[in-house]
Amino acid sequence: MSHGRISSLGEKKLVSWIIKRARASFPDSELHGLGDDAALLDIGDEYLVLTSDLLLETRHFPDPSRPYEMGWKTVTANMSDLAAMGSKPEAFMLSMALPDLEEDFFSSLIDGVMDACTHYRAPLIGGDTNESDEIILSGMAAGRVRKDRVLLKSGARTGDLVAVTGPLGLGAAGTELILSGEKPAKNHEAAVESSLKPLAPVEDALRIAESGLASSVTDISDGLVSELGEIMDSSRVGFRIFKEKIPVPREVFEIASIINRDPMELALYYGEDFELVITAGPDEMKELSGITGLHVIGEVTDSGIEMIDKDGRTYTLDVRGYEHLKGGVQ
Amino acid sequence: MSHGRISSLGEKKLVSWIIKRARASFPDSELHGLGDDAALLDIGDEYLVLTSDLLLETRHFPDPSRPYEMGWKTVTANMSDLAAMGSKPEAFMLSMALPDLEEDFFSSLIDGVMDACTHYRAPLIGGDTNESDEIILSGMAAGRVRKDRVLLKSGARTGDLVAVTGPLGLGAAGTELILSGEKPAKNHEAAVESSLKPLAPVEDALRIAESGLASSVTDISDGLVSELGEIMDSSRVGFRIFKEKIPVPREVFEIASIINRDPMELALYYGEDFELVITAGPDEMKELSGITGLHVIGEVTDSGIEMIDKDGRTYTLDVRGYEHLKGGVQ
Repeated sequence: MSHGRISSLGEKKLVSWIIKRARASFPDSELHGLGDDAALLDIGDEYLVLTSDLLLETRHFPDPSRPYEMGWKTVTANMSDLAAMGSKPEAFMLSMALPDLEEDFFSSLIDGVMDACTHYRAPLIGGDTNESDEIILSGMAAGRVRKDRVLLKSGARTGDLVAVTGPLGLGAAGTELILSGEKPAKNHEAAVESSLKPLAPVEDALRIAESGLASSVTDISDGLVSELGEIMDSSRVGFRIFKEKIPVPREVFEIASIINRDPMELALYYGEDFELVITAGPDEMKELSGITGLHVIGEVTDSGIEMIDKDGRTYTLDVRGYEHLKGGVQ
Repeated sequence: MSHGRISSLGEKKLVSWIIKRARASFPDSELHGLGDDAALLDIGDEYLVLTSDLLLETRHFPDPSRPYEMGWKTVTANMSDLAAMGSKPEAFMLSMALPDLEEDFFSSLIDGVMDACTHYRAPLIGGDTNESDEIILSGMAAGRVRKDRVLLKSGARTGDLVAVTGPLGLGAAGTELILSGEKPAKNHEAAVESSLKPLAPVEDALRIAESGLASSVTDISDGLVSELGEIMDSSRVGFRIFKEKIPVPREVFEIASIINRDPMELALYYGEDFELVITAGPDEMKELSGITGLHVIGEVTDSGIEMIDKDGRTYTLDVRGYEHLKGGVQ
C-alpha cells in the first residue's frame, strides 16, 4: 500500500489485498471460500458456510421509514450469500448498533428479521447490541452444504453457457424510484417491493447444488457485469453475452424513462437483484432448465466480456459494478 | 412493547425480549446458547460456537488515533466470547464500514486484525466492506467445543465457590485515563495497554473446559456484578462476595484517584476486563487452581448478590453494569 486514501483503491482491490494478507498469515491453512460469496469451514463431509453482510440506514435502505423492510433485507442479503454457495440456511445472527428508536419502530424492525428468519428457516441464534447515531445492522448467517455439492465461482469452462435465475434491474429501478421521490404507479409497485423486500433464491440454489450440474455460481448482489467479472477472475474465462436475451422487465424501461436513467445500466451494473448467475455445459444447462427457471444469456469464452446486440454489433463491457469506497457505480 | 423509546428498556430487557421472539418463531428448534456468551450449532459430537461483536470508533475505542489497536480489540472482543464457552477458536470474519481512510491507517488496522488472528490461531476467512462516516468493525468468530465440555452460565449450584481468572478494573482505569487526557505515568502504562490491546483468556478457558470441573463460566466484558447477575439468572442462584478478595491492582486505585473516580466502581461495574468468572464446587475449585491462575472471591448462595467488607459489614449489590442503550453505567 502507498500513502494515498483507500477510495483510490476501491473495494475490490482492498478486499484482494486483505485476502493476500490473510493467506500470508496462515500459509499452512486451507482457507476455503476466501474471495467467494461466503467462507467455508470444514466439518467432515460437509462445509459449514459462513457469511456476514453489514447494512447501514443511510446507505442501504432507500426508505428509512420502513423498519420491517430493513430487518427483512438484512436477513435476505446474508441468505443470498448462502444461496450462492448452494447451502441450506441453518442460523442467523444479528449485531445491531442503534440510536434511541421508538419501541414500535424497533419492534417492526425485529418483526422483519423474525419473518425473514422464518421464511428462510434459519433461527436467530445470537448477536450483539450497541448504541450509534444511525441504524447499523450487521447480519451473519450459517449454512451447510455437502463438500461435493458446494457452488463456487471457480468452475466455469470455455464452451459452457451462462444463465440467470430471474429478471434483472427491477430492484435497481425500485430503489432509484424511491430515491427520486416520484410516487410509484400501480404497475411499478413490484419494483418498489423488490427493492424494499427482496427474496433470496435459496430454494433455486439448493436444487441447483443438489443436481451437481452447474460449473460455477454466484449471486448478483453487485450487478451482473461485476459478478461475471468475479467468475472470470476465479475461473480464468471470459463471456459473450447476447443483449436481447437479458431478462429486463418492461417496468425497468418505464421507470428508467420516468427518472431519466439508462435501463441497461440498471440491469447490468447496479446490483440489488437477488438472483443467481450460473454457468454449465450445454447439456447440463438444458437439464437445469427443467429443475428451475433459467434465462440463458450467453456463453463462456476464453477472456474478456463482450456483448452482442440484436444487429450483431459487438461491445466490450468493462468489469465494473457497484464498488463501495469508490462512490457508487463507476 | 409499549410506545416509549428503547432507551427506557435498556439492553438487557431488549435482548431478553428478542430472545423470547426468537424462541416463539422456532418453537420446535433446540436453540442452544441463546442468551449465553455465544451461540451453539450442533455438528455431531461438538458444538460450533458462533459469536458476533460490533465495535464503533466513537464508542469503543478510547484513542481513535490507534488503528492497530482497533483491529486487535475487535478480534479480542470476539475471542473473549469464544473463551467464555470453552471453545477453541477456528476462524474470524470481519465486516467493516469505513470512511475514506488514509491507506497507512487502514493498513495498520488490518495489521492489528491479522496479528490478533495469528495470536488466537483463528484465520480471517471472510467479511464485508462498506462506506460510512465513522469506523464500524463487526467481528464474527467461530470456534468448536466438545458438547460435554461446553462452558455455560447455567450450572452454578449453591455451595460452589466463585473465582475470577485475573485482576479487575485495569482496563476500565486505562480507558478512563485515556479519555481524561491525563498523560499516563510510567507505572500506569499497563492499564493503558490493557485498555487498548487487551488479551482474551483463550488458553485458560480451554484448560478449564478440558478439566470439566467448572459448573458455570462467563467472560467479564460488561463488569463483574453484571456478569454475576447473568449467572444468577441462568443458574437461579445468588452470590456472597468478599470485597477484600477481589483482585484490584494498586494502579487502579492510583489512577482512580488521579481522575477522581471510585476504584471499586471501575473494578465491579465498568467492564473492559477480558477475564473469566467461574463457579465450581470447593474440591473442583482447588483442583482448578492447579490448572490455571484463579482468585476465589466468594461463594454461591440461594439468591441476590451481597458483598462483605473486611469489617464484616454486608451490602446488597444491585445487578447493574455497562448497559448499552441506557447511556452507560447506571
